Amino acid sequence: MTAFADRLLDSIRAKGTPTMVGLDPRLDHLPEPFRSQAKGSAADAATALRDFHRELLATIAPMVPVVKPQAAFFERLGHAGVAALEDAVATAKDLGMLVVMDAKRGDIGSTATAYADAWLGGGHGQCMPASDALTVNPYLGEDACSPFLEAADQHDAGLFFLVKTSNPGAGLFQDHGEPPLADQVAEAVAGWGASCIGDCGWSSIGAVVGATRPSELAHFRRLMPHTLLLLPGFGFQGGTAEGLAPAFDDRGEGAVINASRSILHAHEREDLAGLADWQSRTAAAVEEMREQLSSIMPATS
Amino acid sequence: MTAFADRLLDSIRAKGTPTMVGLDPRLDHLPEPFRSQAKGSAADAATALRDFHRELLATIAPMVPVVKPQAAFFERLGHAGVAALEDAVATAKDLGMLVVMDAKRGDIGSTATAYADAWLGGGHGQCMPASDALTVNPYLGEDACSPFLEAADQHDAGLFFLVKTSNPGAGLFQDHGEPPLADQVAEAVAGWGASCIGDCGWSSIGAVVGATRPSELAHFRRLMPHTLLLLPGFGFQGGTAEGLAPAFDDRGEGAVINASRSILHAHEREDLAGLADWQSRTAAAVEEMREQLSSIMPATS
Repeated sequence: MTAFADRLLDSIRAKGTPTMVGLDPRLDHLPEPFRSQAKGSAADAATALRDFHRELLATIAPMVPVVKPQAAFFERLGHAGVAALEDAVATAKDLGMLVVMDAKRGDIGSTATAYADAWLGGGHGQCMPASDALTVNPYLGEDACSPFLEAADQHDAGLFFLVKTSNPGAGLFQDHGEPPLADQVAEAVAGWGASCIGDCGWSSIGAVVGATRPSELAHFRRLMPHTLLLLPGFGFQGGTAEGLAPAFDDRGEGAVINASRSILHAHEREDLAGLADWQSRTAAAVEEMREQLSSIMPATS
Repeated sequence: MTAFADRLLDSIRAKGTPTMVGLDPRLDHLPEPFRSQAKGSAADAATALRDFHRELLATIAPMVPVVKPQAAFFERLGHAGVAALEDAVATAKDLGMLVVMDAKRGDIGSTATAYADAWLGGGHGQCMPASDALTVNPYLGEDACSPFLEAADQHDAGLFFLVKTSNPGAGLFQDHGEPPLADQVAEAVAGWGASCIGDCGWSSIGAVVGATRPSELAHFRRLMPHTLLLLPGFGFQGGTAEGLAPAFDDRGEGAVINASRSILHAHEREDLAGLADWQSRTAAAVEEMREQLSSIMPATS
């Protein structure tokens, strides 16, 4: 299989945008009829999520190269929710999108291997659709990150290590020390990824850097010159397109920009209420985001 | 409901040991007939895990106050594995044991709330048995830990924040800076837990400190004088009973000691092969660990 970084860049080029849509399904913000269906048991809610994601993913697939399911919102529906997550991953892949599983896992030794096998390797007996990449928390150190790196190599998958997160209080521990911890993590991530740089020039070992603090992007881009960046926080959390430019190279490549609520809750927007259905409003919000980001990819805008 | 710290101390006192058994089911180390049953599909393996844990938990319940399921080993069986995990939690609670879910979750805002609801609140519509406590990765900062703290308060549950993990390379990031990051995390954890100290004198907001480096225990005990410590790494990872004393007070209280493989793989021990069945060998290994730890709890040894 092609390296993750090459698959991602191919998909971004084909669809002409680094737009990533986060699948963070908050039950009370689903469009109807799913919102009402989800009011029942966890099994009812999981069925509503399954059906919603099938329609959502079909709606956005022509416009969006990659989606990012947020495991937490499925886990809170128990095993039925995990089945709905598996269905969403399979659906996205069938529609030609890449999947970055946002599970922020991290553990040591054989436990880390088990997490990596679950999310990147398809699990026991290939019981699950494998995601193309996984977010990983690096706090436990290099020997704890190694099983994830080995699994990524084995499965031609990618990783996005948390370096500097998008929340207001991210600095409490991530800025600790001199140089700040996040810089040390960034340098480690760049080193881990040096041996898996694809034909596209980018490594399959990426990093999460919040899009809410544009001033930091140039700094982390310098520390990780070949690292694909996953930038969360666009839209709802306050990130803007202008602030994202330092993450990208002259060709407009090197990062994916995630938006979740600004897309998933678009059906609630009054200014889009004139459109016929929730799918049209969702598509309009995706198109709006693609336009906002179009200045980043000059060749395709 | 009674505070988590009080429930845990009551259970430790009643059973006379701070022994915690980790449920890290590696399929190729299950006793028969479960090992053979697990060779099939993920659904077969999940059924084997469900049946194995029901027997295991019944075997150890009279001797063990608290168990720690390791989510990763269930997740790699997909949604069927998560159903087996739910069954194990329910079984342990029915048998009067406490459950600390070792999922090492960590995320921001409403995503952190969703994880906390899943594991401590029973999830959507109480679809899952709630664990008594959850392990949490603190890398994302205080505002990311707050939803977990709020959920713990709401559900009379506990948390164990990763402070210093048991793996050899834990120090790469956890020792970064001066004072080391782990010290800053420890002080934050002590602060977060100050408002939820139970009648037992211990806080329901605990910390994970590896049992593999005894010299550090006294240090972290000083930084977190009222924090319950979860000490992994006893037995298989090299921790010994003598090295654990600094984690405990004069009454032999203040920590739980986890062993996973030394209990779960005891059925493979040649020196126990004379015992009739895997349950007897497992019980013998638990009794051995209780004896090794008996010097810690003088009143009950």
